[in-house]
Amino acid sequence: MNVDRAITAVSGILGDRLTRSDADRKAHGISESYFPVTPPDAVAYPETTEEVSRILAACSEHGCPVVGWGAGTSLEGHALAVRGGICVDFSRMDKLLSVNDADMDATVQPGLTREALNRELRATGLFFPVDPGANASLGGMAATRASGTTTVRYGTMADNVLGLEVVLADGRVIRTGTRARKTAAGYDMTRLFVGSEGTLGLITELTLRLHGQPEAISAGVCAFDDMGAAVDTVIATIQFGIPVARIEFVDADTAAAVNAYSGMDFPLKPHLLVEFHGSPQSVADDATRFGELVEEMGGGPFRWSPKAEDRSALWEMRHKAYYAILASRKGARAVVTDICVPISRLAEAVEETRADIAASPIPGPIIGHVGDGNFHAILMVNDEAPGELAAAKALSHRMVERALRLGGTATGEHGVGMGKTDYMEAEHGQTWAAMGDIKRALDPTGILNPGKLVPPSN
Amino acid sequence: MNVDRAITAVSGILGDRLTRSDADRKAHGISESYFPVTPPDAVAYPETTEEVSRILAACSEHGCPVVGWGAGTSLEGHALAVRGGICVDFSRMDKLLSVNDADMDATVQPGLTREALNRELRATGLFFPVDPGANASLGGMAATRASGTTTVRYGTMADNVLGLEVVLADGRVIRTGTRARKTAAGYDMTRLFVGSEGTLGLITELTLRLHGQPEAISAGVCAFDDMGAAVDTVIATIQFGIPVARIEFVDADTAAAVNAYSGMDFPLKPHLLVEFHGSPQSVADDATRFGELVEEMGGGPFRWSPKAEDRSALWEMRHKAYYAILASRKGARAVVTDICVPISRLAEAVEETRADIAASPIPGPIIGHVGDGNFHAILMVNDEAPGELAAAKALSHRMVERALRLGGTATGEHGVGMGKTDYMEAEHGQTWAAMGDIKRALDPTGILNPGKLVPPSN
Repeated sequence: MNVDRAITAVSGILGDRLTRSDADRKAHGISESYFPVTPPDAVAYPETTEEVSRILAACSEHGCPVVGWGAGTSLEGHALAVRGGICVDFSRMDKLLSVNDADMDATVQPGLTREALNRELRATGLFFPVDPGANASLGGMAATRASGTTTVRYGTMADNVLGLEVVLADGRVIRTGTRARKTAAGYDMTRLFVGSEGTLGLITELTLRLHGQPEAISAGVCAFDDMGAAVDTVIATIQFGIPVARIEFVDADTAAAVNAYSGMDFPLKPHLLVEFHGSPQSVADDATRFGELVEEMGGGPFRWSPKAEDRSALWEMRHKAYYAILASRKGARAVVTDICVPISRLAEAVEETRADIAASPIPGPIIGHVGDGNFHAILMVNDEAPGELAAAKALSHRMVERALRLGGTATGEHGVGMGKTDYMEAEHGQTWAAMGDIKRALDPTGILNPGKLVPPSN
Repeated sequence: MNVDRAITAVSGILGDRLTRSDADRKAHGISESYFPVTPPDAVAYPETTEEVSRILAACSEHGCPVVGWGAGTSLEGHALAVRGGICVDFSRMDKLLSVNDADMDATVQPGLTREALNRELRATGLFFPVDPGANASLGGMAATRASGTTTVRYGTMADNVLGLEVVLADGRVIRTGTRARKTAAGYDMTRLFVGSEGTLGLITELTLRLHGQPEAISAGVCAFDDMGAAVDTVIATIQFGIPVARIEFVDADTAAAVNAYSGMDFPLKPHLLVEFHGSPQSVADDATRFGELVEEMGGGPFRWSPKAEDRSALWEMRHKAYYAILASRKGARAVVTDICVPISRLAEAVEETRADIAASPIPGPIIGHVGDGNFHAILMVNDEAPGELAAAKALSHRMVERALRLGGTATGEHGVGMGKTDYMEAEHGQTWAAMGDIKRALDPTGILNPGKLVPPSN
């Protein structure tokens, strides 16, 4: 068998850092979502780019599928070995290689997590802002084009990766980008690999854009009578250029869940949670301007503070939201959806989703990165209850259809993986075929994360 | 001949909007730079995407080269028809198709210029920030990944194009991106086409990200005793998160040229010119903080104002720089260079370039978008003087070598075109071959802007 021959070859390269143990295979065959366990045939733990290159050359020679593995936190089953083969686990390639203060960049290995990076950066006055919630690996975050709460201010991974080292399917090691802040020298290969979900190459090194730790932070919370007023406030905030660092939405159901979980007393209304980064003066001015805007829009009051301990209390609802929702239905687990629409259609998208969930048997509080038009319903599914998983999938399906109808995308930040392939043709039309052309050009034998992202003929 | 057959076919599609007149061919065979006149065999003036699609299908069938043409302002001869064929001039596709205030985006045809767009946007409170200097077409700006003075705050074209309609080599019309602010749904095709210089497809529609016109602007100028202090000030400004909207460098030679041209009295020193966008309060605070920083760094004083008429006077040096430099040497013309380095290497790159120019027969004042590490020497070449053009090319060559040695790029914003192809292999290594693979995948017969950007075998 091809896979066996590849495994033998990779064993020769890695020794006992190539394992076929059931435990290891199973640990790399699960995901954070509802997909069936799909173990690879073996798990490889390379320690150097050269080893990754040799692994890929061997797999290429024997036509063996290869799937990259970061921290296993992706939500769409990106790293499931649906055609078997070798899982390349980057946990031993987790070094911070260099930090350049003056240029505000850092070069890291793909297995380093974002929290570990920020711990190491603490003394430098710099930080890496992309915050998807989970303590994901930076290689995985690049591969899935992760984003999150701070994207409205600092951008997604596409905006914060300056360059990559990538091993192509045939084992060639290439570098993309430079440490310069911009370039017009040819195709944007960095941004082609960011978000390619391991289908075009394996990322073995990343140069990341860092940002100055804000001198001051202010944060606060306010309630609105309805979703429309909350969204209009977001639109006005961005149009007026009030520089929010985070602007998060939670719905009335989330407020209820947090009240029950934390013994709080938030009004059962939609809320916005907002944070500003800057100088002590600017974050106070920004919060004041935002508060005035909230009142003009009929919401509020906007309660805010520049003090760390107060901020924490004010943001309690957002920090606890996910756990509070998980605790809100005993024995249930979360199916997390993810769509993104033009912000002008956000109220409509949320309201329709809200009504659709209300008519279903499943509770599903909604939280979102509303500055980007991106939101999630946390569908609380009881596996024992017949039909609930199917109902959750149907809700998610209708959310995606809604997003596409409203000019949005099937996934704002979680990626395609196993869960969104079926929508690629609807979203991209013939552009999906062009993605397949690119895949074939860079991975002609189709060994890289096969069965994902591009049309099935690839 | 293939080209003749294609021209006959395209004549059938466009009628007299396909011309072979010498005047028209010559007008599309020149560039803003020192490259020889290279006319296409014919010039097409399509009015619709469908016509562009039919033109490309015909050219594909007959193997006829196709080169796109925007406003003809590119500086590296991108649109020169080095292998003949048909030039597709987008001047009749210059409509603003829609503006969406709430989403802060606009959809435009590729022939619309940035100044025309901003005129049309004036009443909306929105603007399109990318400012390369020339009144370029937006299609051309996307094709060359243009940037400029405001990039330090608002990004390059890669950051400000949300989606594209593109006609592929075989005539297929595809759409990339959505109107949502972010997406994780597959390869970033938008950013693959942005900067592809017409080698992968012709852009027929763009959805652009707009920004709120700043409520207030402050701007000012300060001098430094040496380049190092100026650059250290830029680095500190960005690290402290002082939100500059523009931060431009001009050297002592430029100050001298402006003094001569405008009867001003600027000290013959390196200067920084800075602009802030925000609220009346924030732009005053930002300017004050920046001024304090300048003094700590031994420069200054920083003279600034929030009033439009004062700002204009303070920025006189930057606004007049190019014309003053052009006027500084009678009968000479400008050869404009363009490199970008990590900002920590900027002082070194500028000083070495300065010394290199001083040792040459050519004057070459330096100006730059220093917040990005990007700068230009304006080499003033007298065509009558033997050896000057060769000397200018040699200076440009050494600048590129310097940029690559310092971890930068051969072109920060002008693109590859005719002038930078020779550096692609040095900058990209094997990644250049991968660019060729992508080119072949999307344009297998190689009709799109042949002889440019990818390795010559393509």
